[in-house]
Amino acid sequence: MAKRFSAEKYVAGILAGDRVMLSRAITLVESKLHSDQELAQEVISQVLPHAGNSVRIGITGVPGVGKSTFIEAFGIYLIQQQKKKLAVLAIDPTSQRSGGSILGDKTRMDTLATNPQAFIRPSPAGKSLGGVTRSTRESIILCEAAGFDTIFVETVGVGQSETAVHAMVDFFLLLMLAGAGDELQGIKRGIMEMADAIAITKADGTNADKAKMARAEYQNALHLYPKAASGWLPQVSTCSALQQTGLDTIWQTMTDYLQLTHSNGFFEQKRHSQNLQWMYEAIRQGLEEHFYQHQQVKEQLPGIAAQVKEGQKSAFAAASELLGLV
Amino acid sequence: MAKRFSAEKYVAGILAGDRVMLSRAITLVESKLHSDQELAQEVISQVLPHAGNSVRIGITGVPGVGKSTFIEAFGIYLIQQQKKKLAVLAIDPTSQRSGGSILGDKTRMDTLATNPQAFIRPSPAGKSLGGVTRSTRESIILCEAAGFDTIFVETVGVGQSETAVHAMVDFFLLLMLAGAGDELQGIKRGIMEMADAIAITKADGTNADKAKMARAEYQNALHLYPKAASGWLPQVSTCSALQQTGLDTIWQTMTDYLQLTHSNGFFEQKRHSQNLQWMYEAIRQGLEEHFYQHQQVKEQLPGIAAQVKEGQKSAFAAASELLGLV
Repeated sequence: MAKRFSAEKYVAGILAGDRVMLSRAITLVESKLHSDQELAQEVISQVLPHAGNSVRIGITGVPGVGKSTFIEAFGIYLIQQQKKKLAVLAIDPTSQRSGGSILGDKTRMDTLATNPQAFIRPSPAGKSLGGVTRSTRESIILCEAAGFDTIFVETVGVGQSETAVHAMVDFFLLLMLAGAGDELQGIKRGIMEMADAIAITKADGTNADKAKMARAEYQNALHLYPKAASGWLPQVSTCSALQQTGLDTIWQTMTDYLQLTHSNGFFEQKRHSQNLQWMYEAIRQGLEEHFYQHQQVKEQLPGIAAQVKEGQKSAFAAASELLGLV
Repeated sequence: MAKRFSAEKYVAGILAGDRVMLSRAITLVESKLHSDQELAQEVISQVLPHAGNSVRIGITGVPGVGKSTFIEAFGIYLIQQQKKKLAVLAIDPTSQRSGGSILGDKTRMDTLATNPQAFIRPSPAGKSLGGVTRSTRESIILCEAAGFDTIFVETVGVGQSETAVHAMVDFFLLLMLAGAGDELQGIKRGIMEMADAIAITKADGTNADKAKMARAEYQNALHLYPKAASGWLPQVSTCSALQQTGLDTIWQTMTDYLQLTHSNGFFEQKRHSQNLQWMYEAIRQGLEEHFYQHQQVKEQLPGIAAQVKEGQKSAFAAASELLGLV
């Protein structure tokens, strides 16, 4: 990486809202170098008391749903109408899978990218899901400390990453296209049940009626779901990034959600349990990393796994055998 | 436990279909004693080549849905009409939660319990979910080796155990009551999306029309879900254990599913990936058990966890700190 400063310099820069220092601190968090990681942890520990004062919003949808266009329009709305400071982070461990809709393709968010009240950070390339979720979560803390009060965490609605995002945000927004047919099949099962709100995008022109029908259909379907622990009933609305319509309704839904969950204690409780969840997750990752990098495990795992897969060796016998090597 | 035999004696008994030996081998699998566990692993390794030839069916539903009554009626139907040999296992780590609907209350399955073609085994009391799922999975292997060609794994649709069951069965059946209101709220979010079929129970008498309507409603909702990896579209039907109706439809659905997934390779592929999943899961459990039993970790975890929860310490800093103790 370019240049390293002392932890104090990073911290001072971040707390002063210096975007360049924020950006460099995130690069530190994303680095695989041990020395960078140590420095990153020091920075995070120091800014931690200044973090947490934001609304963390997960946004997902399959490629083609118009995610970038939505984020740009909704972001500008939040900055201009609601006077927010917005950071947009992306989770996308395998960028070839994203079909070009991810933030790496920055040109899609021209207006937002050049707005002084917005900070956009694409996902680091070539990282595992574990690596990306870890650095994204730490980037949230850094952005909050730098004064951003609204954080978008974007992900592509086709893989495991939604669960990771769901575990780090306060509110989960699913973008959908009208027409419950083929478009849906790209969405992974289980994602719909995570949504606190669904927004039917591209509700304009000849598509407007279809979007309205889809809205009613999804709202009905969501009524069939078991009630969420938050006490919140997920809302469905339509919007058009093109015509800038429906954005206020989505923001109102979020505001309603926040009001409900702040008043019933769910918001704080969820943040607390997310914090703990990440600690246990980090412990698990640390233990597994250490185990699977052990020389003998590396050598014997493939052969043993093949036997387990074919049912020639029981899963538990194989596990004991491998655990015995370390 | 009562009496221990040599591994060979257990194996010979199980392969001969001796129910007493099968029962004792399961007790061995459930035992926490190290010596029992070693013997159990030997037995499992030896019967493993004779296992796998069954259909593994997960059955879940909230208390009050009539799960025991359904299992009894459907079990008798399979034995009498389809000439099956049926083993019924239960996953229920915290039996006080079950509201009495779990197999421990054997009297509810009188007819099945005394049928020579059925084998019923309640969940071991006082075990953690990890312990129960492990012993259930190994019990499936033992039952298959003993000649049972149909395995039910029962669970109460309110907790984490459904995910564990879903990961060990070929087909997942969700029992539901008519009326999409309050009854649903006991079902955990995400369970509906796991179902390969939903059966609306108690579709008899004055309830029959309501059940029919619920059937149409759920079938509609399921169409909105993304398509499953199996290529299967989950089916909804109604049934009455009381009037013995709809059981043949449910079995036909299962047969259709098996035919599809055998022909497109999904069945075998799923079994293979389940085997591997259990190995990695067992490794994870082994690593975490070792870690969390470490004296210094035990002493320092509560204080550190409290700081993480309140946002005073970052999750990753805490994890490094704790990992450094071992």
